[in-house]
Amino acid sequence: MISLLEELKRKTYQANLELVRKNLVIYTWGNASGIDHSKGLVVIKPSGVAYDAMTWQDMVVVEADTGRVVEGSLRPSSDTPTHLELYKAYPEIGGVVHTHSVYATVFAQAGRDIPALGTTHADYFHGPIPCTRSLKETEAAETYEGNTGKVILETVSALNQPVLAVPGIIVKNHGPFTWGKDPEEAACHAAILEKVAEMAFKTLLLNQESCLPPFILEKHYRRKHGEHAYYGQEKQ
Amino acid sequence: MISLLEELKRKTYQANLELVRKNLVIYTWGNASGIDHSKGLVVIKPSGVAYDAMTWQDMVVVEADTGRVVEGSLRPSSDTPTHLELYKAYPEIGGVVHTHSVYATVFAQAGRDIPALGTTHADYFHGPIPCTRSLKETEAAETYEGNTGKVILETVSALNQPVLAVPGIIVKNHGPFTWGKDPEEAACHAAILEKVAEMAFKTLLLNQESCLPPFILEKHYRRKHGEHAYYGQEKQ
Amino acid sequence: MISLLEELKRKTYQANLELVRKNLVIYTWGNASGIDHSKGLVVIKPSGVAYDAMTWQDMVVVEADTGRVVEGSLRPSSDTPTHLELYKAYPEIGGVVHTHSVYATVFAQAGRDIPALGTTHADYFHGPIPCTRSLKETEAAETYEGNTGKVILETVSALNQPVLAVPGIIVKNHGPFTWGKDPEEAACHAAILEKVAEMAFKTLLLNQESCLPPFILEKHYRRKHGEHAYYGQEKQ
Amino acid sequence: MISLLEELKRKTYQANLELVRKNLVIYTWGNASGIDHSKGLVVIKPSGVAYDAMTWQDMVVVEADTGRVVEGSLRPSSDTPTHLELYKAYPEIGGVVHTHSVYATVFAQAGRDIPALGTTHADYFHGPIPCTRSLKETEAAETYEGNTGKVILETVSALNQPVLAVPGIIVKNHGPFTWGKDPEEAACHAAILEKVAEMAFKTLLLNQESCLPPFILEKHYRRKHGEHAYYGQEKQ
Repeated sequence: MISLLEELKRKTYQANLELVRKNLVIYTWGNASGIDHSKGLVVIKPSGVAYDAMTWQDMVVVEADTGRVVEGSLRPSSDTPTHLELYKAYPEIGGVVHTHSVYATVFAQAGRDIPALGTTHADYFHGPIPCTRSLKETEAAETYEGNTGKVILETVSALNQPVLAVPGIIVKNHGPFTWGKDPEEAACHAAILEKVAEMAFKTLLLNQESCLPPFILEKHYRRKHGEHAYYGQEKQ
Repeated sequence: MISLLEELKRKTYQANLELVRKNLVIYTWGNASGIDHSKGLVVIKPSGVAYDAMTWQDMVVVEADTGRVVEGSLRPSSDTPTHLELYKAYPEIGGVVHTHSVYATVFAQAGRDIPALGTTHADYFHGPIPCTRSLKETEAAETYEGNTGKVILETVSALNQPVLAVPGIIVKNHGPFTWGKDPEEAACHAAILEKVAEMAFKTLLLNQESCLPPFILEKHYRRKHGEHAYYGQEKQ
Repeated sequence: MISLLEELKRKTYQANLELVRKNLVIYTWGNASGIDHSKGLVVIKPSGVAYDAMTWQDMVVVEADTGRVVEGSLRPSSDTPTHLELYKAYPEIGGVVHTHSVYATVFAQAGRDIPALGTTHADYFHGPIPCTRSLKETEAAETYEGNTGKVILETVSALNQPVLAVPGIIVKNHGPFTWGKDPEEAACHAAILEKVAEMAFKTLLLNQESCLPPFILEKHYRRKHGEHAYYGQEKQ
Repeated sequence: MISLLEELKRKTYQANLELVRKNLVIYTWGNASGIDHSKGLVVIKPSGVAYDAMTWQDMVVVEADTGRVVEGSLRPSSDTPTHLELYKAYPEIGGVVHTHSVYATVFAQAGRDIPALGTTHADYFHGPIPCTRSLKETEAAETYEGNTGKVILETVSALNQPVLAVPGIIVKNHGPFTWGKDPEEAACHAAILEKVAEMAFKTLLLNQESCLPPFILEKHYRRKHGEHAYYGQEKQ
């Protein structure tokens, strides 16, 4: 029987491999997922399985609402409840990625937002990439991964922007989550978040007072994502 | 029909690939161009196209004076107006490169010149690599990329040196632009600028008072580029 | 004659190669070993032999109690006595690895524990990774490598935890030793120790006051290693 | 006609390639040489030739005493006079290497010795790796490369140790030179000097007060290089 979600499984599988290619993960330290909103089904990496031992058929299908496995013989990623919180809150999100990439994790461990210091950042993130608050002890004790998702939503919500305007976040003491219109874009944002985190980290070592004029942030974000965007080729 | 600019397209294409090989760019974050001054035509990377999906035939030809596309079915790089400002001002420039390489961008974000601290720097750059001033809000609002070029020219001009004596610059909060007698040399200078930026960054972390005696700067620059240069093989 | 320890030799050989693949060693700077506790025999890398010149048959077999070579024509690693101290003290250890990986060695040279600052650390190490005290001059003069092992045991013992709860240590001014249930796991812990050391190093540069709430440390360690662990696939 | 120095040319060529493999050089930024003391002839890389365009036959043969080219159609490295100073002063040196590797160059630019902070360093260098004084303006004006060699000799001489006990140095504002019993060992020392420089740099960022007890330095140096060395396999 061919899975109705074969294409999404293949895309989600490819997004997981992209994390390896971009040096964002070692061993089993990351996961990518994708959603079919119309079916209410999420495809996600199996838990604790090595990237090079995995095929696209190993992707696990779960219900977006409940997390119940509906296809696949392996357990889904233990971070699945975090992904589901994002999908449930935002229909415009089509893919979610989690990694422990070095520089993003460093900001998470330091408990600091990744500041917008240059046009590389502004080309993709419309403002600083926020670091969530710490989970409370009671939030960690029960449904930890779900509560991690809720703390992400709380932080995104406080930005008062469309969720795709700042398509990533760092969870305090943990690491980055990114999202996009599909798994491929979510993986791409994971690589870019890591790169801008690296640049911000080194910039702060060189000059703690560094900052980006707001109108440069606007200009770069708009030329790629605004109504009159002129970066790239015309969409067909 | 064979393009009259086939050779320049091939060279410009190769210079773009060199940016990938030297780890200066990911995704579509950079562009190389070349000019045929006699024809007044510039060949440049198409906008937002991935390096591994590109062929030499995808290079776009634009008029140096106006930026009007005269050959190619894709849009030229959105940074084209910046390249054109350099070509229009300096007939000795045959190639221009722009990247967001990490250490060069870190200096750009910190708003600091890359100081000349050693002979590696002096072998290629006759003095510090300057960081431009910030664009003003009005300069960013209209013809932003052209004004970026104008701010580069303003900074180069203030050095009172031949434009090839310091074949690169960093644009505040943005990143590096480099140039050379052809696209290959411009790409080479992009890689070297990144390496000397890395060395300068780490040197400043170790010793903020580091400096290079001016006569060592002169000696190394002259042994490669002076009238009696003796580095390398005799030009034939 | 086929070695009775062929399988352990092959696994130990593979663990040594994993150190190269994970960029933890250059030249001959590291060694992995494995033990057959039932036979009282340890298999270890030969001393000063390059990884790419080695075959699994070159692994040396020594007696766990005495270090006497019982199979193999090459000398065992000069660090053998350090490995043996760990095996003699802890029957739950099946593999030991030593490297000079950069960030772990940096903490060793700085004489600092690697603090637990995030969930990446907590997923594998149940608390900070301790740095041993310095060896005394008399300890270095005689049976230096054995005394290195004894100082490791002294430090592990002071943690009052099962030896596999914090499966690694750094020896002051020297570098990391890691262990696991077999050579493969010991090598894996060497790669992870290096990565968490890198993250901790950079986190401390960004924010010296960084810390991890203890209940997050517990939560992450337990979800992978506790009685009700739910990370990964069910053990069969 | 077969060169009498074919074997030395091949070894010197291989040592040059090793600099590329160990990421110590880009473009033409480094050179390795070897000497046949009995013939008074030195084999060295040609100047300004890319590593991947070079064959072993391109190695240039010069007289050790005078630097006069006696075989080869290309100019020898512009750093040849520096190499020759080392060969003339020390018959125990059989190979010399110069690079601009990042961390070694950072110490050179900061004007600091590379301190001995751990056993990785002590395994190869019997004490700190010194940084030379700056050349004086008159020394840079005439026979600059020869004077660079003389400043190296002045610094080595002040150590009051056999020249192979600390087989490398960094030239102020320039970069590292290393040596060994043959070109291969000199290249190996270049890679190791870079690695210990990286470790020392990062250790100093973490703890400026770091130091290595002298008896550990002695112990590690002697176990590899002392009269009763027991590291590695027995020499045949």
